[in-house]
Amino acid sequence: MTDQRIYNFNAGPAALPLSVLEEIQASFLDFNGSGMSIIEISHRSSSFDGVINGAVQRAKRLLKLDDRFHVLFIQGGASMQFPMIPMNFLSNGRSADYINTGTWSTKAIKEAQIQGKSIHIAASSEDRDFSYIPQDISFTREASFVHLTSNNTIKGTQFHEFPDTGGIPIISDMSSDVFSRPLDMEKFGMIYAGAQKNLGPSGTCMVIIRQDLLDSAEVDLPSMLKYSTYADKNSMYNTPPCFGIYTIDLVLKWIEEEMGGLEKMEEHNIQKADLLYEFIDAGNFYRATAEKSSRSLMNVTFRLPSEFLEKKFIEQATQHGLGGLKGHRSVGGCRASIYNAATMESMYALREFMESFEKENK
Amino acid sequence: MTDQRIYNFNAGPAALPLSVLEEIQASFLDFNGSGMSIIEISHRSSSFDGVINGAVQRAKRLLKLDDRFHVLFIQGGASMQFPMIPMNFLSNGRSADYINTGTWSTKAIKEAQIQGKSIHIAASSEDRDFSYIPQDISFTREASFVHLTSNNTIKGTQFHEFPDTGGIPIISDMSSDVFSRPLDMEKFGMIYAGAQKNLGPSGTCMVIIRQDLLDSAEVDLPSMLKYSTYADKNSMYNTPPCFGIYTIDLVLKWIEEEMGGLEKMEEHNIQKADLLYEFIDAGNFYRATAEKSSRSLMNVTFRLPSEFLEKKFIEQATQHGLGGLKGHRSVGGCRASIYNAATMESMYALREFMESFEKENK
Repeated sequence: MTDQRIYNFNAGPAALPLSVLEEIQASFLDFNGSGMSIIEISHRSSSFDGVINGAVQRAKRLLKLDDRFHVLFIQGGASMQFPMIPMNFLSNGRSADYINTGTWSTKAIKEAQIQGKSIHIAASSEDRDFSYIPQDISFTREASFVHLTSNNTIKGTQFHEFPDTGGIPIISDMSSDVFSRPLDMEKFGMIYAGAQKNLGPSGTCMVIIRQDLLDSAEVDLPSMLKYSTYADKNSMYNTPPCFGIYTIDLVLKWIEEEMGGLEKMEEHNIQKADLLYEFIDAGNFYRATAEKSSRSLMNVTFRLPSEFLEKKFIEQATQHGLGGLKGHRSVGGCRASIYNAATMESMYALREFMESFEKENK
Repeated sequence: MTDQRIYNFNAGPAALPLSVLEEIQASFLDFNGSGMSIIEISHRSSSFDGVINGAVQRAKRLLKLDDRFHVLFIQGGASMQFPMIPMNFLSNGRSADYINTGTWSTKAIKEAQIQGKSIHIAASSEDRDFSYIPQDISFTREASFVHLTSNNTIKGTQFHEFPDTGGIPIISDMSSDVFSRPLDMEKFGMIYAGAQKNLGPSGTCMVIIRQDLLDSAEVDLPSMLKYSTYADKNSMYNTPPCFGIYTIDLVLKWIEEEMGGLEKMEEHNIQKADLLYEFIDAGNFYRATAEKSSRSLMNVTFRLPSEFLEKKFIEQATQHGLGGLKGHRSVGGCRASIYNAATMESMYALREFMESFEKENK
């Protein structure tokens, strides 16, 4: 870690691998011998073809995707996927099952309802303030898909196993845990992820979609709101978010080549989260807010004995070079977001600070 | 110009001011003393508030906008605006006039028609292959707005004056000439511009919209497709494209502080374009393709005596460090895109190359 850099626990945009940032910086005035910045080169150039195809191929290798899957880059964040999904897959009276595990699931549901689409809430953890992942799920036979949020950044919960839907394709918002672990993609018709947590800068959403789901989509839609537009043109119907795709390619390269792939990435993430949860559970000063079996490996949410202490904790942490520990404005408390790029060094620094803060304020 | 940098005539993504690129590079690991990269900081931080508010205020100062105008940042490029405009402003049977001056206008029209909206083509220059800006325009009294494309990158034409619509607000796609000259904003209900030509990296579209037009918009739409969502939340309903907004802020700062504002910017752009057009007109080897009164100051489109020579010209230019001179794939020929950031030095380098190529190949 260079002198000026802090330990970054932001929920998103979030920490990125230092080696990736350094590579972007080093080549920023002259990308790949082009004599231009990556933000000045044409998206129709062979240089950029290398970038986008690199990112697509890396994603396919990491997730072991076969040719049925398309890897797309779409703008507007996961929030734009919320309306696009029902728009594309719920025409002609088709219906879908949604699992509600918090703020983002709720928004996805709302954007389907705004369009008057037929939605069934198959399960919800709202009864205990979204502190757990529901196990008791009532799928409807006629659902075209099941929508769920794999990791809930605000409440700090995560699906550790995905439900058996009886063959109905799952569509999952994976903004906050994509590429953090291996996935059995057989269960998924589509996954999508805003880049700004595990993948790169905000402004690019990666969408991975299976051909059979794509084939079922409504065709009579504006071009930019149709998945087939992106699939048919390798995400270049119009100018794509080139800098985002470039950064994603570098981050995926880092996962493949520096971290050793998704199995290793998952081990690393478990190690990191365990270090914090074990420390929290060992005492009674800090209290984890998510139910134990549903705890997220990406967002460790916790409380202190009082709001006064929480405020003091966050302030002093910032002074000690530990940033982004404030809980989401809708729930308060504290949150350490520890996505792929967060290092073990950061975990030790945080645990050490938590220990000394506890001693001084107990 | 540093050793490795080329003269960049790309149509978009395109050349950006070197001083802007250098500033991004220098602070890339530590933005504004935050200890984080600009792509790692939270969009809810005071640091980023400074960035987005800076960009908004600079845009307002440069265009002398009063409080009726909102400056928004939306993802999806100008191409996402094509469907959003009719979606927001043509509900309940309202209709609009569209002026068709080429590929991008045609796409805007198509995206309204896909939605079954009522559109009237008030004028078109298709009869002479879009080589001019029509003067004879038949506005309909009941039009809610008039849509036009201020500069046509592919055919190299530009509106030098905007039509008198009798008070109907103009909505203009200004992707390729925004901030290249002062504007009388009284005529406009809305202008929009994909960033990747005159403003910054691809992936961010700047939208400037007047309150009365905003008030007339349909409310029953998905959140991400409603202008009011962006206006109500200072473009931060969801995570905005932070890196794009940051770069736009720096580019607008460069226009204000280094170039001296929009009057000076326009003088500079006229000087640059004149240098090329005068050279082209002086001989008979090169031939400008747009009609004289409609020529663009941003995209100088020209032909050589044969396609063979055009191919040779583009190849040799590339070898001489002059990039991006190939015409759009749909029309062929040559094109020098000379947006704000293109320098006089580039113009001289291009003219010199054109002179020597002509001598050798006449």
